[in-house]
Amino acid sequence: MSNGAFERVALIGIGLIGSSLARALRRDSPETSIVACARRAETLTAVRRLAIADETTDDPARAADGADLVVIATPLSAYAAIGEKIMPVLKAGTILTDVGSVKQAVIRDLQPYVPEGVDFVPGHPVAGTEHSGPESGFAELFRDRWCILTPLSGSGSDAVAAVAGMWERCGMRVVTMSADHHDKVLAMTSHLPHLIAYTIVGTATNLEGSLKSEVIEFSASGFRDFTRIAASDPVMWRDIFLNNREAVLEIVQRFTEDLTALQRAIRWGEGDTLQELFTRTRAIRRSIIEAKQA
Amino acid sequence: MSNGAFERVALIGIGLIGSSLARALRRDSPETSIVACARRAETLTAVRRLAIADETTDDPARAADGADLVVIATPLSAYAAIGEKIMPVLKAGTILTDVGSVKQAVIRDLQPYVPEGVDFVPGHPVAGTEHSGPESGFAELFRDRWCILTPLSGSGSDAVAAVAGMWERCGMRVVTMSADHHDKVLAMTSHLPHLIAYTIVGTATNLEGSLKSEVIEFSASGFRDFTRIAASDPVMWRDIFLNNREAVLEIVQRFTEDLTALQRAIRWGEGDTLQELFTRTRAIRRSIIEAKQA
Repeated sequence: MSNGAFERVALIGIGLIGSSLARALRRDSPETSIVACARRAETLTAVRRLAIADETTDDPARAADGADLVVIATPLSAYAAIGEKIMPVLKAGTILTDVGSVKQAVIRDLQPYVPEGVDFVPGHPVAGTEHSGPESGFAELFRDRWCILTPLSGSGSDAVAAVAGMWERCGMRVVTMSADHHDKVLAMTSHLPHLIAYTIVGTATNLEGSLKSEVIEFSASGFRDFTRIAASDPVMWRDIFLNNREAVLEIVQRFTEDLTALQRAIRWGEGDTLQELFTRTRAIRRSIIEAKQA
Repeated sequence: MSNGAFERVALIGIGLIGSSLARALRRDSPETSIVACARRAETLTAVRRLAIADETTDDPARAADGADLVVIATPLSAYAAIGEKIMPVLKAGTILTDVGSVKQAVIRDLQPYVPEGVDFVPGHPVAGTEHSGPESGFAELFRDRWCILTPLSGSGSDAVAAVAGMWERCGMRVVTMSADHHDKVLAMTSHLPHLIAYTIVGTATNLEGSLKSEVIEFSASGFRDFTRIAASDPVMWRDIFLNNREAVLEIVQRFTEDLTALQRAIRWGEGDTLQELFTRTRAIRRSIIEAKQA
């Protein structure tokens, strides 16, 4: 590693996030050699056509062999099998990280198998679009977004700094927190919004014939914004909900209570309750604009 | 009326929609004289500073007097009182229309009092942003959006054509449907999405201290999109929910059933149920992009 850059980075999984990281590494650290690993042949063909990696393989062990940084960037359900394949080839001094949207489950699946001398630094670059696959990536995806690292007691501070440095070169602001706290924050900011968006779009698809087509025509009045979120990758999101079950169910419960209260206010014509809430939520939007996250 | 343009248009209410219409009329029909009516003095001061009306008044009757088109563009709760004031001054041949997001309630509040010889054409230009007030309007707001008219059996066809023509000159595509059907379609495409967005942002504001501030910082991962919708005008939205109660409660009920089913699938680890829905919702997004409403 010279000037903070890695010599050989293995990207296990090369979808939106993996391919965006490949592009950013190409741009910022041209000396870094990139190995891209994917299960499907057509994904690897796309990676070669896009010229965003020096090597491609469908074998995680071959990708990880000799890498000084291994980044797992697949849906969460693939982690355990990948862990089994790569752990035996990781040499001492290698750093293992990931980009998964849930952190406690990732630690549960990988940590017990990390070899002595290998630093595991669980991570989550909080960035994305509703598109997926290597064609949809772009180096600027990470610009001005947050990256959350959830280091373990055993993660060496040099390893944490090296992973943080990589994301900072991508334009991210890096923070660390506990995996448990991460999973709670993301359940509210990301997992619940996606679940709600999937639900509401599902409710619309169940409408009777003519009403259903009109919902698409008149979608600009609010519904449209939900369909963008509900177009996110189905497998990735299935895995997120199954792997952050407790935190998601807890926050869905709170949401449902709040919705029931509003429903009741509408039924009984309690205008003040509605107006008070709607005024309060407007203030939150202002905070987000002030925090420059709008 | 020459070349379809009105001679004197009274805009009762001059917020986002009213002021956008004033700007579009100024641009497209400079010969039309515009009277803006608002309750608050500072709104009228803003209108004069923006120079988007020829006259300003806080008296709806004075605004409507002598107008050949009267457009009500206030929150729904103001309609009944405005109707009481303007009906006595409306001369035969005047067209009365509105821009309200609910149509059955508007017809219930105004229709019985419309004088003989006056044509009432209830309307809803389906366009908006999360901003409100006369400063937030712009002539292009209506471009390529839908305008729904819900004419009554008594609405003269010339009057319907005149109102349709005005919105078409604003760049809108005009359709007609029954008020009952309008209220059902909008409950799904607009009212439910807003209610859900208000709810989820409210759920976030109820979180414990540190978690709450982090929700704002990490809002880019999904939550942010909801805060934009939940920043919409509180009084306008209070009135919409109170005036489209039956249709909103019916669609909230369906949504809640669907959310409960998803919640159950997460609890019991039913990945196939989740993935199947998430794949279906992705297709809806594609339909919206194809319908050029994205």
